[in-house]
Amino acid sequence: MEKIIRKGIAFDQEQLRLFDNQIRKKGYKNRSEAIRNMIRKGIIEEQQENPEANMIATLTILYDHHEHHVQDELTHIQHNHPNLIRSSLHIHINHDNCLEVIIIKGKVKNIKKLSDEIIAAKGVKNGKLIMTNII
Amino acid sequence: MEKIIRKGIAFDQEQLRLFDNQIRKKGYKNRSEAIRNMIRKGIIEEQQENPEANMIATLTILYDHHEHHVQDELTHIQHNHPNLIRSSLHIHINHDNCLEVIIIKGKVKNIKKLSDEIIAAKGVKNGKLIMTNII
Amino acid sequence: MEKIIRKGIAFDQEQLRLFDNQIRKKGYKNRSEAIRNMIRKGIIEEQQENPEANMIATLTILYDHHEHHVQDELTHIQHNHPNLIRSSLHIHINHDNCLEVIIIKGKVKNIKKLSDEIIAAKGVKNGKLIMTNII
Amino acid sequence: MEKIIRKGIAFDQEQLRLFDNQIRKKGYKNRSEAIRNMIRKGIIEEQQENPEANMIATLTILYDHHEHHVQDELTHIQHNHPNLIRSSLHIHINHDNCLEVIIIKGKVKNIKKLSDEIIAAKGVKNGKLIMTNII
Repeated sequence: MEKIIRKGIAFDQEQLRLFDNQIRKKGYKNRSEAIRNMIRKGIIEEQQENPEANMIATLTILYDHHEHHVQDELTHIQHNHPNLIRSSLHIHINHDNCLEVIIIKGKVKNIKKLSDEIIAAKGVKNGKLIMTNII
Repeated sequence: MEKIIRKGIAFDQEQLRLFDNQIRKKGYKNRSEAIRNMIRKGIIEEQQENPEANMIATLTILYDHHEHHVQDELTHIQHNHPNLIRSSLHIHINHDNCLEVIIIKGKVKNIKKLSDEIIAAKGVKNGKLIMTNII
Repeated sequence: MEKIIRKGIAFDQEQLRLFDNQIRKKGYKNRSEAIRNMIRKGIIEEQQENPEANMIATLTILYDHHEHHVQDELTHIQHNHPNLIRSSLHIHINHDNCLEVIIIKGKVKNIKKLSDEIIAAKGVKNGKLIMTNII
Repeated sequence: MEKIIRKGIAFDQEQLRLFDNQIRKKGYKNRSEAIRNMIRKGIIEEQQENPEANMIATLTILYDHHEHHVQDELTHIQHNHPNLIRSSLHIHINHDNCLEVIIIKGKVKNIKKLSDEIIAAKGVKNGKLIMTNII
């Protein structure tokens, strides 16, 4: 667990009221936790723009498993990157379609390249990549 | 599989050249597939703004499992929404931190509310929600 | 000017170090101002999702003024919404292309509708809408 | 004006129906124009990630003009970058607050640096940067 330190912060009174409303509505129990999460989000956004930063990503794809060779192709791509891919989760959405979530760990530039390759595979209909980090 | 129809589209020549370069770099084998994926992305973005639309979401969270009661709390929230949550994937990132990917299926408004609740749980450090759909 | 109040906030030590680095790099003179701007950004993002919220928007469009009737069409649309449009700025980018920034004030739903209409006008090549607010 | 060429594109029938609905709702008169705008948007998003790409940006800021020296500071920053800043538009929002839209032209890395500096200036409450390009 992290070492916690306390600092005085100057807030605008009216803005703080709106913020407290917002975080209460979202379910936060206290203001410090909400602010720590906002700071973390900002740092992660900055790291994402740095090709050399090490991050953890989840790539969510939708594909039609009837599409010729799509699963072979996806397995092939994933096996070519054993150092980047940590694991994956497969869900049957309906008769035709599968959702797959692939966990990727590595440098931003490598995560993006692999993600582009998977999304572009024939049969993959939609792909979305998000990155996060421990900080 | 979908029924395919062919239509003539008027492109700007120079723009088409840039587009073809871009999709080749991303790994697409043909222009039609890249355009279908772009159209799908646009429709999904529109659906996401409609609280009543039915979508499939993945919520990726990072949390410190040493944080008091965080796993109980996450399990508790998820069990309160059996109709929304389809499954989840858990990854041990390091000694302290876990990554969890939760698959949610339901109306946009319910997905967002559940996601806010999970992200606000004490101990959850970062959460990102993405939505997709079969179209 | 706003009324300022001071509150104690609990930070993770390592996270605070990364945050201080980030805001120094961005040019912030103090931590409180950076946190106030982050809070404002979060509240504005929330308001943007509320169709009834009153906001201020800037719509940036690029268009080719040689395109038949594009300026007539843009003037026509803008004059149909005198209560929404506050002013606009026109820049000649090169021989063919103009950049126009249109300042819109009103409810989110009306801002979006007007923005869609302008972006869809024949000859408009690209349009981006951002919303902000006084808080 | 651009040179137009016509190409056959294979669409999914059901997806095309949803797309046609969407673009009709947005006000597009024809499918080719909507597709050209989508392609342009994708290329611009890619260029934005390239620090060396030349782009046109609008930075929208809100500030309280009562804040000590904020206007001097903003003028000072802008005059330090005569090659980047093309023009600006100033709107009085209410008794305290001003909206300023600054048009910036240059390399992505320089646009971002200047934008960070302006947003971080004391008194600037909120800033949003968008980039576009002629293609």
